[in-house]
Amino acid sequence: MSKIRAAITGVHGYLPDYILTNAELEQMVDTNDQWIQTRTGIQERRILKGEGKGTSTMGIEAVKGLLEKTGTAPEEISLMICATVTPDMQFPDTANLIADAVGIRNGFCFDLHAACSGFLYALTTASRFIESGGHKKVIVIGADKMSSIVDYTDRSTCILFGDGAAAVMLEPDTEGFGLRDSLLRSDGAGHVFLYQKAGGSRYPAQPETVARREHFVYQNGAPVFKAAVSGMAEVVGQVMQRNGLSVDDVSWVVPHQANRRIIEQVARMASFPLEKMMINIHKFGNTTAATIPLCLWEWENRLKPGDNLILTAFGGGFTWGAIYVKWAY
Amino acid sequence: MSKIRAAITGVHGYLPDYILTNAELEQMVDTNDQWIQTRTGIQERRILKGEGKGTSTMGIEAVKGLLEKTGTAPEEISLMICATVTPDMQFPDTANLIADAVGIRNGFCFDLHAACSGFLYALTTASRFIESGGHKKVIVIGADKMSSIVDYTDRSTCILFGDGAAAVMLEPDTEGFGLRDSLLRSDGAGHVFLYQKAGGSRYPAQPETVARREHFVYQNGAPVFKAAVSGMAEVVGQVMQRNGLSVDDVSWVVPHQANRRIIEQVARMASFPLEKMMINIHKFGNTTAATIPLCLWEWENRLKPGDNLILTAFGGGFTWGAIYVKWAY
Repeated sequence: MSKIRAAITGVHGYLPDYILTNAELEQMVDTNDQWIQTRTGIQERRILKGEGKGTSTMGIEAVKGLLEKTGTAPEEISLMICATVTPDMQFPDTANLIADAVGIRNGFCFDLHAACSGFLYALTTASRFIESGGHKKVIVIGADKMSSIVDYTDRSTCILFGDGAAAVMLEPDTEGFGLRDSLLRSDGAGHVFLYQKAGGSRYPAQPETVARREHFVYQNGAPVFKAAVSGMAEVVGQVMQRNGLSVDDVSWVVPHQANRRIIEQVARMASFPLEKMMINIHKFGNTTAATIPLCLWEWENRLKPGDNLILTAFGGGFTWGAIYVKWAY
Repeated sequence: MSKIRAAITGVHGYLPDYILTNAELEQMVDTNDQWIQTRTGIQERRILKGEGKGTSTMGIEAVKGLLEKTGTAPEEISLMICATVTPDMQFPDTANLIADAVGIRNGFCFDLHAACSGFLYALTTASRFIESGGHKKVIVIGADKMSSIVDYTDRSTCILFGDGAAAVMLEPDTEGFGLRDSLLRSDGAGHVFLYQKAGGSRYPAQPETVARREHFVYQNGAPVFKAAVSGMAEVVGQVMQRNGLSVDDVSWVVPHQANRRIIEQVARMASFPLEKMMINIHKFGNTTAATIPLCLWEWENRLKPGDNLILTAFGGGFTWGAIYVKWAY
């Protein structure tokens, strides 16, 4: 029997309606459109507005759409994993809140936390469940409401992030399609450069932690930028080499959308023309766990069976990785 | 070739020194030792004291001890998963903070969130990575600093929880030992009974959420108790049946330690004598993701190769499950 692999058989996303433009940010902090575009490539991002709406609000829409477009009944889903750094609540996990809303009750669901690399980690994890047999339909969600942890008085970070969610369906495949290789890495030494200080067990929420604005994203941009470029370029190169892939063999690179300049430098180091890089950061900013599946959703109609895709991400932890997927449809 | 399974080849735990007794709780809220013992079976729990100490503080000690007792170098670990509901920070993930402290940098690490069932979910997930090949030494941690999210003015919950951490080493085995079956379940409809309302993307930390004490565990005890008993009894029965195991075949049941009365009722429904149930809740209370590996650690010297163990848990989500492990050493 041929090896069982996890093939992506559908993708669907959700982006909130509200558009936060650079012009609006100019009114909020000391910044300007030209500076933002030059340094990050971002023109606008989507924001989820509304009291009591969390990451699951977007994840529910993404999963509903995915079930509908793939003609899948909720009862068929045996596993659903949500990658996020902004769960609705610390518990229950956001995957279960989404499952409850869409009627998935015949399997099990959990959240996976690995910051901006969360989607790649969750995709790899889900594929291991499929490869071991016993799972026919698995959903992996990448979803983040970054606006819930962004300090809109900090001009260095508030320009970067947006809200969004997207989900993929995975099914077993024995024809050679699907997730063919995954190289994931972590180095916790990076924890000093990118973190959310308070709100966890180390510094639980107190009036003082809120007053000190410690529940927001902190980032020391320069070392993260540098490590992101070298980290992604390295794992992309390793995955291509060990699978005998040349630049010509790869139809698309699907990079995490943290900064357009990072994407450009990774492309240069890995010798990819920019035309092969999926880029939509100008419209959505960094949606953390959602960037990669949102790209797949936007490019879905241009993908063909057999296309070789390299997915790559880098983020807090540090965590990073690259995945080789042969597109199935 | 025989099937590759994930065998537990070591376990180590850590419990903080400070003992919170029922007598001390009597001074804090309107309760008494007899009531607590009758309703929950808990006599005392451990509390991690100290500014800036989080779940990783305990996880680091558990993993350090595990590496030492198994004679494993940090470089050998290719994957480490931490199950928790009380991460040090929302990101980076706690597994990476632990990895950084103990020198694990050659693989990848992430957190898995599935409330009180987190350890069983993480153990199953890690086993899929081992079964797929390519991983020789994997660590799974269950760790929670519940005191960081417990309201010590709420007499219904503050008596229940304690802090702790424990970790297991997993290695591939082809002799029939290890994780032989896993049945995991979720039903998000349970989210209304057990949750931490604020601090996530739904209700980010604000002076008002802190003032309203919404960053603490909320539990509606009666429906959780009922669902826990029926949920655990059901999956334990199913796992035993589909593996042809009688009560006599099972050496130990390792139940999540949420309430002694839940454990007693599960034992009764599954026809197990209490002598086969690992119980240490009287000493440690409910340490959430840490309860099951803490039991394995305490009973380690009484376990023999070939012993059949049934691990079972139920918690927020709802999430629940049962795992059949043939002990390897």
